[in-house]
Amino acid sequence: MSIGVDIGGSKVLGVLLDGTTVIRRVKLATPSEPAHLAKSVQDVVAELGGAASVGAGIAGLVRFPEGVFAWGPHVAGTRLPLRDQLEELLGVPVIVDSDANTAAYAEMVIGNGRGYSNMLLVTLGTGIGGAIVIDGKLYRGDSFAGEWGHMLYQPNGRQCACGKQGCWETVASGPALAAMATAFVEANPSGSLTHLLSEAPITGKAVTQAADAGDEVARGLVTQVGTDFGRGLCNLIAIFDPEVVVVGGGLGSIGESILGPARRVAADALHGAAHRMLPPILVAGMGPDAGAIGAGLMARAVVEDGIESV
Amino acid sequence: MSIGVDIGGSKVLGVLLDGTTVIRRVKLATPSEPAHLAKSVQDVVAELGGAASVGAGIAGLVRFPEGVFAWGPHVAGTRLPLRDQLEELLGVPVIVDSDANTAAYAEMVIGNGRGYSNMLLVTLGTGIGGAIVIDGKLYRGDSFAGEWGHMLYQPNGRQCACGKQGCWETVASGPALAAMATAFVEANPSGSLTHLLSEAPITGKAVTQAADAGDEVARGLVTQVGTDFGRGLCNLIAIFDPEVVVVGGGLGSIGESILGPARRVAADALHGAAHRMLPPILVAGMGPDAGAIGAGLMARAVVEDGIESV
Repeated sequence: MSIGVDIGGSKVLGVLLDGTTVIRRVKLATPSEPAHLAKSVQDVVAELGGAASVGAGIAGLVRFPEGVFAWGPHVAGTRLPLRDQLEELLGVPVIVDSDANTAAYAEMVIGNGRGYSNMLLVTLGTGIGGAIVIDGKLYRGDSFAGEWGHMLYQPNGRQCACGKQGCWETVASGPALAAMATAFVEANPSGSLTHLLSEAPITGKAVTQAADAGDEVARGLVTQVGTDFGRGLCNLIAIFDPEVVVVGGGLGSIGESILGPARRVAADALHGAAHRMLPPILVAGMGPDAGAIGAGLMARAVVEDGIESV
Repeated sequence: MSIGVDIGGSKVLGVLLDGTTVIRRVKLATPSEPAHLAKSVQDVVAELGGAASVGAGIAGLVRFPEGVFAWGPHVAGTRLPLRDQLEELLGVPVIVDSDANTAAYAEMVIGNGRGYSNMLLVTLGTGIGGAIVIDGKLYRGDSFAGEWGHMLYQPNGRQCACGKQGCWETVASGPALAAMATAFVEANPSGSLTHLLSEAPITGKAVTQAADAGDEVARGLVTQVGTDFGRGLCNLIAIFDPEVVVVGGGLGSIGESILGPARRVAADALHGAAHRMLPPILVAGMGPDAGAIGAGLMARAVVEDGIESV
């Protein structure tokens, strides 16, 4: 048995794994105090009954294999020695990596990245995360590779949670979708979308549900996010020429309403598009739980085969 | 002895190498007819006296190891089986790769990338080219990786030679610098820069020379190009977190007047800048000849050790 935990901006999700099968699932709110982060992982592990090894993925910059959370725009804390704190609290081997890397590990081992040597994982949710698989192994650079959510996408564009302006995730993310819908509803208080989005604050999920229910404006907004997402994917494909792009995260996992427009714009805008094929752009096989599942799989692999195996 | 050839948008440059030392150097104009490309390489090789193996780097998308030139915005031709054509014409083993990959090979083996496992090579000249070294080896993806000159940088921006709008190289390249200077001179016909740039058409090189001569406007334009270059480098550093970035190409090799502003903006704009170090951004050790030299080194390595060695 192993336990995987995904520490996101709003929730700490834990899964108990028997091999590659999820046996139990526990979710807590992410604490706002960095000092309480390790304790909340301990609580999740205790509720799951413990295991021989524990892995954690966290949204942000993580030094690997040291497991130090350096910083991230969505989770409070800097230079937190999470792996060491958790090993002391739990008394079992622990690995800590970025949530995108753990999600990519899950997709590579049991998800839609299986069988590919060179894969990009792009998570679309509260922000955009990323992980790179080259020759069947995670490529981390000097630790922090894959932070393409903070590519400059619109010079002097919207304020990003990271402190800069115009990052890709300011136009392609759940909050970006919610912000566009909020602005539309405020400008059109008697429109159909206003009735569908009566609960405040408006969330990205509510907008995608309105789109699924057939609202044309909501569909247009989802298509706009899909298009901006696709333009950024196109940059990544020009840079990596990967065999496959796997898209996960809460918003990315909803499927064709985002990926359809993304594929169309990427096929059109790719450098030398007339002389090459667009690689497949697939939805993540493990859905939004990929980060937690991959953390558990990674912990097991490290205990069994050593740190070089991940 | 080996011969390396760099096929660029305007010239075909060949070098005869004894080991890693350049013995002779020959330059011809690039033919505008794709059918004459192999012949012009043959002419360069003949002028250099021939060698046991020949390598060629070409600006654009190249299928490797097949050596097929698929397409490129700066050299005419599509699906040219250059390697096979050259092996037939020359009767010696030939390798054909992108000019950025051959330049990166030179930097990795005898230039400023020596001793690093993870390096990005970024060439700044007529356009922006790129190559990726991971774990001490060139990473090509499915063949076409490194085409970050065509990242979308300015939505609805300037027309690019590739057919799209707003690519990074439309604001950071020799032609971009020349275009800005031309516009300034036309708007200020009696200004100091107009006297310094009296030869038409204005080139990027003439502008950098005016900047070196102390002209404040020319310095400002070079700094602007350096700044836009640095913002794009910053994207690449967020994506790869490399150990080192080596900058080559005609404009990139001029040094601090471009790299100084690039480093400053990259240090400021890098994701999580307060919690990490900017990797070193170095000028290419082999200068603008890196592409030809690397092609020769690569040809020798392939003959001696097999295609897996590059």
